Order: sequence, then C-alpha cells, then structure tokens
Amino acid sequence: MTLRITRVEALDIRFPTSLSLDGSDAMNPDPDYSAAYVMLHTNDDRLTGHGFTFTIGRGTEICVTAIRALAPQLEGASVEELVGDLGGTSRRLIGISPFRWLGPEKGIMHLATSAVLNALWDLAGKLRGMPVWRLVAAMSPEEQVDLVDFRYLTDALTPDQALAVLRAKAPGRGERIAALEADGYRAYTTSAGWLGYDDDKVRRLCHEAVAEGFDHVKLKVGRSLEDDLRRTRIAREVIGPDRELMVDANQVWSVPEAIEWMRALAEVRPMWIEEPTSPDDILGHAAIAKAIAPIGVATGEHVQNRVVWKQLFQTDAIRFAQIDACRLASVNEVLAVQLLAERFGVPVCPHAGGVGLCELVVHLAAIDMVCVAGTTQGRVVEWVDHLHEHFAEPARVERARYRMPQAPGYAELLPASRERFTFPDGTYWREART
Amino acid sequence: MTLRITRVEALDIRFPTSLSLDGSDAMNPDPDYSAAYVMLHTNDDRLTGHGFTFTIGRGTEICVTAIRALAPQLEGASVEELVGDLGGTSRRLIGISPFRWLGPEKGIMHLATSAVLNALWDLAGKLRGMPVWRLVAAMSPEEQVDLVDFRYLTDALTPDQALAVLRAKAPGRGERIAALEADGYRAYTTSAGWLGYDDDKVRRLCHEAVAEGFDHVKLKVGRSLEDDLRRTRIAREVIGPDRELMVDANQVWSVPEAIEWMRALAEVRPMWIEEPTSPDDILGHAAIAKAIAPIGVATGEHVQNRVVWKQLFQTDAIRFAQIDACRLASVNEVLAVQLLAERFGVPVCPHAGGVGLCELVVHLAAIDMVCVAGTTQGRVVEWVDHLHEHFAEPARVERARYRMPQAPGYAELLPASRERFTFPDGTYWREART
Repeated sequence: MTLRITRVEALDIRFPTSLSLDGSDAMNPDPDYSAAYVMLHTNDDRLTGHGFTFTIGRGTEICVTAIRALAPQLEGASVEELVGDLGGTSRRLIGISPFRWLGPEKGIMHLATSAVLNALWDLAGKLRGMPVWRLVAAMSPEEQVDLVDFRYLTDALTPDQALAVLRAKAPGRGERIAALEADGYRAYTTSAGWLGYDDDKVRRLCHEAVAEGFDHVKLKVGRSLEDDLRRTRIAREVIGPDRELMVDANQVWSVPEAIEWMRALAEVRPMWIEEPTSPDDILGHAAIAKAIAPIGVATGEHVQNRVVWKQLFQTDAIRFAQIDACRLASVNEVLAVQLLAERFGVPVCPHAGGVGLCELVVHLAAIDMVCVAGTTQGRVVEWVDHLHEHFAEPARVERARYRMPQAPGYAELLPASRERFTFPDGTYWREART
Repeated sequence: MTLRITRVEALDIRFPTSLSLDGSDAMNPDPDYSAAYVMLHTNDDRLTGHGFTFTIGRGTEICVTAIRALAPQLEGASVEELVGDLGGTSRRLIGISPFRWLGPEKGIMHLATSAVLNALWDLAGKLRGMPVWRLVAAMSPEEQVDLVDFRYLTDALTPDQALAVLRAKAPGRGERIAALEADGYRAYTTSAGWLGYDDDKVRRLCHEAVAEGFDHVKLKVGRSLEDDLRRTRIAREVIGPDRELMVDANQVWSVPEAIEWMRALAEVRPMWIEEPTSPDDILGHAAIAKAIAPIGVATGEHVQNRVVWKQLFQTDAIRFAQIDACRLASVNEVLAVQLLAERFGVPVCPHAGGVGLCELVVHLAAIDMVCVAGTTQGRVVEWVDHLHEHFAEPARVERARYRMPQAPGYAELLPASRERFTFPDGTYWREART
C-alpha cells in the first residue's frame, strides 16, 4: 500500500497570553500567542505530520484559510514522493502562480507555506525515525544543496558555492553532533524584560536569569527612552559588567530615531539592538549599523524571505541574523539563509519564543552547528520560558543551554492542548466566553 | 441620524480569463483575473462604498477572509469620522498589532487593507459628490500630507519636504485639471504581447495598436530568448523606429540572467525592462540598471510597500515607478510613493490591467499630474483592453489617451457582473461546472 496524505487538517489555536502581558513589546501590547496549525493525516493511522506557523491572535484564521488553499497540492499525494524530494516539494509549493501573486514569498501565504512545509519535515523525520536536525545532518552535502531554492540568490550564492561550504564542514559532523548531545546549545533569555513588566519584576527576573546560568539577557525597549534607560540600567546592574545585555525595539523607530535612541542607550553597552526599524528597510539597517557601532544590529523575525536576507548581508546591515522557523519557508529556506550567513561571516542567532518557536529553532541551530557554520562561537539562541508544557517534547533549557530534541519529527502540540485552545470552539475559549 | 457603516460585505469574484490566455506571462501562465471585493453598506441605502484588491484566481478566498478580519474595525463606525480623517483611518488599520505580525504591510493582509481603504475612498468620493482624483485635488497641501504615513520614511522624505512639494505645485492645479479633462492622459498598451499569443496575433495586434494611436507598446518576455527576439523584432518592425517598445519579464530572472538576456534584447531598443527579477531585490534592480543602461529598469506591481519604494529610489534602481492601486494601501500609500518619486526625480507610470486596475489608476495618475509631479512628461499609464464592461464607469482610452472619470467615487463593479462571476456560486461558475 502506497503511503499517501489523505487529509490536510488546519486548526486555529490560540493561547490567552495577553492576560499576563507575557510577550508584550513596543509594537505588540497584548498578543495572544497562537498557531495556525496543520496536520497531515495519512492512510497510516500511526503517522501524522504536524506543523504550524506562529501568530499573535487575531488573523490566525486567515493563515488557516491559506493552509486550506494549499491542501489540494498535498491531498492524495504519495508521502515518499513529497518527503523524498523536499527541495522539489518546497519549490513547487512556493511556485504556484496565483499564490505568488499574493506574495510572492511573503506575508500570510508564506507563513502558511511554512506551516505546511514544517509538517512535511515532521512527517519526514517520523518516517525515518529521526528528529529533524539529525535527519538533515544525515544528508549528503549534495542532498542538502538540493533543499535550497537558489532562485534570486545566485548573484550572492551559487549552488557550487553552497556545496563547497557544506563539503568543507562534512568531516567533523559526528564530533559536533556528540558535542551538542553532551553540552547542548547556548541560550539567552527574553523572559526578564517584556515591556509590560514593572521595574521590580525586571530586577527579580534578571536575578533569576543570572542564578539560572544565563550570560545573555534581553530587554524590550522603544516606548519611552526614560523608561528604557531606567530598566536597562537595572538589568546591567543586576547582571554585572561581564554578561551580555541585548535590547529589542520591535520596529518602532524610523532610522534617525533609532540612531538617536541607541546612542542614548549606549551607556548600558548593549550587545545588539534588535529590530530597530522596519524589517523591510535594508538600507536603513545598514545606516543604523554604521552609526551605532560597536553596538551590533540584529534582525530577522520579520525578514520575509531569502531575497531580503541576501541584501541584509550584502550591505553589512546586521551583525546577528535572527532567522525565524515560521516566517521563512521551513528548513529549506532557513538553510539557504544559514548558507548565505556563512558566506558573509554573520552568525545566526535564531529568534524564538512565541509558541513552539523554541521547539523548532533548536533543530535549526543544531543544523547550523553541525553542517553549515561548524561552530557555536558567537551564537546564542533565544529562549522564552512559556507554553512549552503544551508540546509532546517540550523544548528544554538547563543551565542556560538548550538540550537536543530526541523524538522523531519536528514539533507537535499535545492533543489535549490542541483541543482546549482551538479558537473559538475549544473548551478554554468556550469557558472564557461564559 | 449619524451615517454609519452597518455591514462589511466581502465577495470573491473571478473572471475566467485563463480560457483565452489574456494575461499570460512568464510567471503566470493561466490567470483568472479576480477581485477580493468589499462593499461597505451604510444606514443610507443610496450610499455604499465599493473597493477591491486584484488577484489572479486561486487564493482570492484568503483575501476575502482577511477583509472580513478587518470588518470589526469598521462596522458601527461613523462614516464621517472614517472618511473625514482618511490618513488616521489608514494608519489605524495598518497599525493593528496582530495583523502587523502577518505582514507587516505586505502580502495578503496589505492587499486586504488596500481593498478596504479603496472602498473608504469610494465612499468619501460619493459622499462629497466627486470622483476620487478630484476629491484629492480639492484638498489643501496640508490635508494631503496628513494622508501619508511617514513612519519609516523620514530619512528620505519628511512631512515638511512633502508639504514643500505639494505647495510648489498648488498654484497650477486648476489649469492642469482642465488640461486632463480636455486631453486625457497618455496610455500604453499591453494587449498586444501576452506570452500565450502566437507571432501572427502579436503582429496583428501591434498593427492595431499603431492604428489606434499608441506610441508605446509592451510585450511579455522571459520564457525563451529565441522567442523573445523573434517577437520583439516583429513588434519593432511593425511600430517603426520612433515609437517606444517596452518588455516585461514578470520576475523570472536572477540578476545575472536579467543582465545577459537584456543585453541580447538591446538590439530592439526597449525603453524599459519591467520586473527583471524578484520585486524584493532592491540591490539586484540597482545592479541590473547599472549594467543595461540606456535601457531603463521598471518595477512596481509587486513592490509591497512604501519602505521598499523608498529604497528603490535611494539606490537609483529604477527609472520608472509602476505603482499599483491594490498592492499599496490605496490612495494614501500611493501618494507617499508619488511624493518620494518626485523627490528623487523618477516618473510614475502606473501598473494597470488585471480587472479594475485601469479604472483605479487613472485617478492616481491624475492626482500625480495635478498635485505632485505637475506634469505628464515622461509618463505613460498602462492600458489593457479587457473586462471594462463590468464596471459602472468603464475606463476609457481614446486615441491612446485615458479619459478622466466623472462619476463620484473610485471604481465599482456592476451588480450583474458581481452576481454572475461570484465564485463559486455565481451563475457563470455554476454553469461552468455543469
């Protein structure tokens, strides 16, 4: 019997995080962390591919509609054909002409494509009995190159150049896998500094972060310079001079504002300013980077696709590349960006948090370490400690280091959590309305 | 009685253009020209705002879902408050935090926002008894500046600079309105050169274009260099040495391919190459522009927002700015781009065609002429002669010149066309399935 996808199920799942101001920042005052969630059912009851894209409440239903629009591409198809050629499958999904009109490769259509591809990667991992990071690490450099869509990249990265990078790093893979299994991957915490938290809470959480072993702490900034100075001084005082402090403005500034604000915050010596301005403003990031050095510019959670990434690298606009597991079109496009970053010498420090992003990015950071960068030096992965209890294999950070996932597949919500938080008819939301 | 929006109705309307290969190009082999259509019903039965965003078939339902997601922002609101402050209304719609996550300001969410704002502009025009271009032309420079969202623009264009541009052009408005009413606005035709047409049809249509008075003819290219050379030579032969030939690749090339291909096509002396590569590749367009001069680079129908436009201007990447009435967030964001273009000395040549784009862009070209550029020199507006019969006031081109719209409002489909082509339950689609 040929293994086939029998049904694509798309769910709108929302967690009521706005109640506690977890996740509040200068642009997003009250997000309900959500997922447009996809389940690829097969004619084998034991095998279902799970994927999602991360959203923050209202509008998740639009992503769900977009996932459903992709379903005819998958329903009835052979699982082996889809996951045996994930590069071709990815290029085919991205290339559907009427959907390209709605992007191309950006916004809701790209988020939905990411969710579907994440589910296919999950299926691939389960089928081979491996977590996704191990599955990719087991591929040859040639197979890895074929995962990437080089359209629009060849002026900065050709398939031959990508192959050279991957071949150069192939010899040490085994040792690096062992190192990751033994020591994990360094994490930083954002849990201390949401914009909705008061000074005492920031101080207490910074103390806790240090006690837990974190060497990197990130705070949200951008609503009031006075508040930002007070809060970042508290953080700097608590973490001491030798740990790293990062700040994140979530796109609220114009270019001149970003430069002015960051010059004022320079006294607390931030390692990076994240999202100082519009994620579309490549030249703006480059201008900010030049003006505020040695503070580094970081961005990525809203960088829409590999074409914009290419230009951020070409213009020396960023010193840290914060790839997003659900903004980009899954492992395929993340790998493209990791390869570009390696060519341009920029460390990849994945964006995480939200719901499920930590569960996904640990795979991606491991792929970077094992296959592309060959090191974790100068790299650190975001960690936000909430909503992990809803996952079959929750992301785990111990002594400020991510532990490597072991279960076959990518990341999957527990059935009880899916049911409880499905919007608007899950039990949580029904009870909340009464 | 306060005039209020009582209900937001969103429709999926699709025309079966794929049957005739009208609209076929290198990226889009068989589009069904479509509209995610919005009707803002009010408590005055005689007053309904109509708007839409243009799509090409599958996926229109996703834009419809996105329009519905915006409806709570409008339902119950005072029409005067909404249309009396269209700048504020636009900034408020664009600023909704969970929807920004799905963009920001790009893709499906931005297309839906455009549709809604187009409907609000239609409502504003009807309420004041003026076509939209006249409504804008009747505003003071200060009121016009307030329409624009300057977020992320101030490093290239400040409100004061925009005001200076508009004030400088204010004195001659009356004469320019009279000139447009008398002489119309120069059009070019794309109807001759869809990629699905054979050589004889291209030859015949080029002859017809010349006979109709067109001095500018555009052909689709990019699938086969041999075909392109043959077809563009036919066009050049028919139109003669003194008319302008433009070519359009619809994003199929990488940067090196675009340069190579256009060097080969240089012998037919194209005035511009449109969409040579990814619309996101600002630096790529700049590299192509440099390599293929004196052929100009044109782009815009997929340029997602004013932030990308800003950078296309900052890098001298384009010589023609093809703003799109439904890709950008309506009159407000188009005005921002027109002001940027004026600052950087780039002529605006609107993209049209599809369904309804000609009906919309004639307003936008007129606003540019009357209020921003103050001239039509070096400017030409796309014209594609199909689907106009579905509109209450069809776009009209006579002797290759757009006639100015006279009816109050923006653009509106006839009730019979809406009903017949609503997907999937309109009479056309029901009959097509039997």
